[in-house]
Amino acid sequence: VSRSPIIAGPRPTTFIEAPNLTARLGANVVIASEAFQWTGSFKFRAAHYVATHVPHAAMVTASSGNFGAALALICRVLGKQCTVVMPAQASRLKMDTVRSFGATVDLCDTTRRTRESRVAELAQEQPGAYIASSNDDPLVIAGNASLGRELARWPFDAILVPIGGGGLAAGVVSGLRNAGASTPVWAIEPALANDFSRSFAAGRIIAFDSEPETIADGARLRRVGQAPWAVLQHGVAGVLEVSEDAIRDGVRLLFSQANLKAEPTGALTVAALLDHPDRFRDARICCVVSGGNVHPHLYAEIVRDA
Amino acid sequence: VSRSPIIAGPRPTTFIEAPNLTARLGANVVIASEAFQWTGSFKFRAAHYVATHVPHAAMVTASSGNFGAALALICRVLGKQCTVVMPAQASRLKMDTVRSFGATVDLCDTTRRTRESRVAELAQEQPGAYIASSNDDPLVIAGNASLGRELARWPFDAILVPIGGGGLAAGVVSGLRNAGASTPVWAIEPALANDFSRSFAAGRIIAFDSEPETIADGARLRRVGQAPWAVLQHGVAGVLEVSEDAIRDGVRLLFSQANLKAEPTGALTVAALLDHPDRFRDARICCVVSGGNVHPHLYAEIVRDA
Repeated sequence: VSRSPIIAGPRPTTFIEAPNLTARLGANVVIASEAFQWTGSFKFRAAHYVATHVPHAAMVTASSGNFGAALALICRVLGKQCTVVMPAQASRLKMDTVRSFGATVDLCDTTRRTRESRVAELAQEQPGAYIASSNDDPLVIAGNASLGRELARWPFDAILVPIGGGGLAAGVVSGLRNAGASTPVWAIEPALANDFSRSFAAGRIIAFDSEPETIADGARLRRVGQAPWAVLQHGVAGVLEVSEDAIRDGVRLLFSQANLKAEPTGALTVAALLDHPDRFRDARICCVVSGGNVHPHLYAEIVRDA
Repeated sequence: VSRSPIIAGPRPTTFIEAPNLTARLGANVVIASEAFQWTGSFKFRAAHYVATHVPHAAMVTASSGNFGAALALICRVLGKQCTVVMPAQASRLKMDTVRSFGATVDLCDTTRRTRESRVAELAQEQPGAYIASSNDDPLVIAGNASLGRELARWPFDAILVPIGGGGLAAGVVSGLRNAGASTPVWAIEPALANDFSRSFAAGRIIAFDSEPETIADGARLRRVGQAPWAVLQHGVAGVLEVSEDAIRDGVRLLFSQANLKAEPTGALTVAALLDHPDRFRDARICCVVSGGNVHPHLYAEIVRDA
């Protein structure tokens, strides 16, 4: 962009109600969409909070997707330097978005080294930079808590939230409780990436050896962060796993019944109602749709037969 | 749906700001999206107003699309009977939507007779029914005026509105002026369906002999209605025509830069900024996106290469 937009803070979430979506899902569903948040996903809430709450003039993060774009935009607004370490095989579209906000894209050949080691190297090179995690930082949880406070105003019987690194789910729980709401929060994750489900059952963080291969790219993480775990271990009512087919069906249903463009990770919560139809029958359910950024090829392939 | 949703009235429009959309369009653009209105388009505003302001227990309308669905839903909520005359070649999806709200779909073979003659026949059969027009009725303009009142609160330099039958544009003008706002309103129509542009220049309604073939199906009307014309003739600042290519590009830009699923008619206003880039350079522009209902095959084909 040629000029910085005027951004006072995160945008309020967008509530969407659709009679035919409710009919198809067997529950009274309200969507809380973060697809219209700045940069198209909830990640801007945390990026904004972190960037405005640390004094550092430079920020470094590793992100192949939404957090990098969010941090890049808020750094541009604040006049901070921003470096985003991305895997060399990341999509051109995602790199272009980060660059469009004036950030430096640092490409890392992840077949030869980890992104973490490259971030550590950059930390040495830029001793004044803040190393920003997309989930494992109390500031991230405090930033995402703004969504929890918004949800606290509604009389939901349950709130369903996608889980990857845990920053969103922990923020929603934290914001709800701070606002005095005891609404149960359910974490929803792909069965192919069920590390939180197994961690929750075991009472300790369990990690995958490598990133799991789910269509929900926001959940392609080996494990949840320590900071969110401290909130989530006793903070969520439970975890539900969903199939890859249900995730695709969720994207299609949001397209056809709610006119909402959701990324696969965002559709996890609708997928949970499809895969677990009796769990929330006739209850007032909020499905958090965490973002809308999805490659056009993939989206076209999924919705063609909606 | 098994039960009637609780619908107190039209939903407020959804304002979307996207830095990269603004950068691409060369103006400070705010989208006012009606894609999340009940039944997915602005048509619910008028349908709700008409159905709640006439005493008739039955409603009849001719619609191949959004107005039929909107009227069907509000009639279900109010407990009124609803008959929607649709062309026999309308898409199965649209028929299913109207039927899902409990309305009767009356199929008309438009190769053998006009929809108007079938509506007249139904009016004879159902003497107690209100014959609802989707645009040519002062009640329609009064209903759509609620959007104009919402837009009056923003400091826009200009508001761009799609035009087909004229009901939306007339409603926006009427609502703005009633709220004391003098914001200029521009009507945007496909060059292939430029009856309003020619009417505006001539100072009288000019009609096509047959429905024009544009991808913007909401603008496939032979002419604007008399009631909207009375408001629009001196009420709009001007008319801009856009190409079919720009309409497709508009759908793609809204997909990629604003995460918004728009129907082609809804994308007319963004298309206007693409086809007329100097007209509103650096101004604060509201693009009204009138709805999001588009067949998945067509949408997938358009956005695949966004």
